[in-house]
Amino acid sequence: MENFSWLSAFKDMGAKVRAEMGELFKGTGAGKALGKGAGGDTTLLLDKKAEDAILSVLEMLHESGERFKFISEELGERDFGDEGVVILADPIDGSNNAKYGIPFYSTALAMASGGKLSDVNLGYIINLVNGDEFWAVKGQGAYKNGIRIKTTDHVELGMINFEGSNPRRDIPAAMPLLKVARKVRCLGTTALDLACLASGATDVVLIPSPSRSFDYAAGWLLVREAGGIVTDTQGGSLEETPLGLGRTSPFIGAANRTLLDKALNALKGE
Amino acid sequence: MENFSWLSAFKDMGAKVRAEMGELFKGTGAGKALGKGAGGDTTLLLDKKAEDAILSVLEMLHESGERFKFISEELGERDFGDEGVVILADPIDGSNNAKYGIPFYSTALAMASGGKLSDVNLGYIINLVNGDEFWAVKGQGAYKNGIRIKTTDHVELGMINFEGSNPRRDIPAAMPLLKVARKVRCLGTTALDLACLASGATDVVLIPSPSRSFDYAAGWLLVREAGGIVTDTQGGSLEETPLGLGRTSPFIGAANRTLLDKALNALKGE
Repeated sequence: MENFSWLSAFKDMGAKVRAEMGELFKGTGAGKALGKGAGGDTTLLLDKKAEDAILSVLEMLHESGERFKFISEELGERDFGDEGVVILADPIDGSNNAKYGIPFYSTALAMASGGKLSDVNLGYIINLVNGDEFWAVKGQGAYKNGIRIKTTDHVELGMINFEGSNPRRDIPAAMPLLKVARKVRCLGTTALDLACLASGATDVVLIPSPSRSFDYAAGWLLVREAGGIVTDTQGGSLEETPLGLGRTSPFIGAANRTLLDKALNALKGE
Repeated sequence: MENFSWLSAFKDMGAKVRAEMGELFKGTGAGKALGKGAGGDTTLLLDKKAEDAILSVLEMLHESGERFKFISEELGERDFGDEGVVILADPIDGSNNAKYGIPFYSTALAMASGGKLSDVNLGYIINLVNGDEFWAVKGQGAYKNGIRIKTTDHVELGMINFEGSNPRRDIPAAMPLLKVARKVRCLGTTALDLACLASGATDVVLIPSPSRSFDYAAGWLLVREAGGIVTDTQGGSLEETPLGLGRTSPFIGAANRTLLDKALNALKGE
């Protein structure tokens, strides 16, 4: 199946997850814990429902002959007959927002032709609250709701998004950068942080905690195809990062080389 | 006009602003600067359009005999024939989010029967992205989309929202509290922070910069009517705070007394 057929499948999954969340939030119990997910987070009813919605589309594709490996936050890895094509899912990125009732969360999906981040060919993110869809196909650019997007050409550190999943450790680590920003945001969803970066809404994204590849694979391609750069927090390449369930390096994304250099220098205390 | 008639008027204003923003974001130029607003921020096209939508409803009310004073971020104060009733508006709370393209911003409206915060009888906040409406009438409770809301009964510092309009100054000031939180968010809109607190989505809100009364008057009543507490950052009462354009004290809101005491102690370094 080609990139654009997978994009169509991802859009189906996004629509199904969004419909499922709409149903769930009409009642109560969205945040009801179900146990531990393969990624280590507590699996919530909403995460499970979202993953099931994605699986329902993947199972149909598999029945019609598609072969792939599926890696997802909740179930871990599942073999659908071929490890040459990898589908990565974060069913709900921003689970805590959804669970607590802060209306800002997303689904992130990626497709790769191998086991490394540089093998990612397609990334898709949907804001489950307002329905905004972001996607990128390798070599074909990045899009928001069908319109081509580009990162900003700002050269000053204006809006910086960071995540602090462990505030006591992460905020001090981020502070050398945050204190030179004009504005900061901590929104609770890495996928939407990267979608903000790709669409020019923010200048730099800093994730000071080790992340998992399904958290950022889609956003990584989106930012690159929109003209931005994503590296580890020393400026090193992430291309060889394995696509799996393990936690990998903290990372930083910037709209352009000038902002990346300024941000890396700020983090070094220069 | 009674509280519930004003609530109906506020809902009309919210719907008009939301429709206006929908139109504006179809095109470009939402963030086009128009000059300085009375509150000191740069007035953007979107702020002006939002205020005009609110004014259009107020002018109709005035023509039909209502008398009041209007205080708003952009135009400052305007006399509609009576200073005994004060209408406060923050046409777009989270202007920078709207301007940059982060889909999280609101309109906040309040009505008071005098010139102090304790005179606020009605507060209304609408999330302009998903349409969620929050309101409170003094002595009548707080509501989200028509359903009664209450703050959490959590006794541990879980989710803390803060704002850092000046990151270099505000994040270090907030840090003694942030480092003892399980999760932190910096969402860029004080009104929605307070709506999150009132509806149980967050446990504590800290605004370390001096704010203006139209930024928090609606949210202040919402939190109180939902069972929460809002004080200055030393735990002092805000009841006598004048309703006007000047910047007043930093403040903190908590879901209950236990969380307020824990948060104030954390800020004192205890």
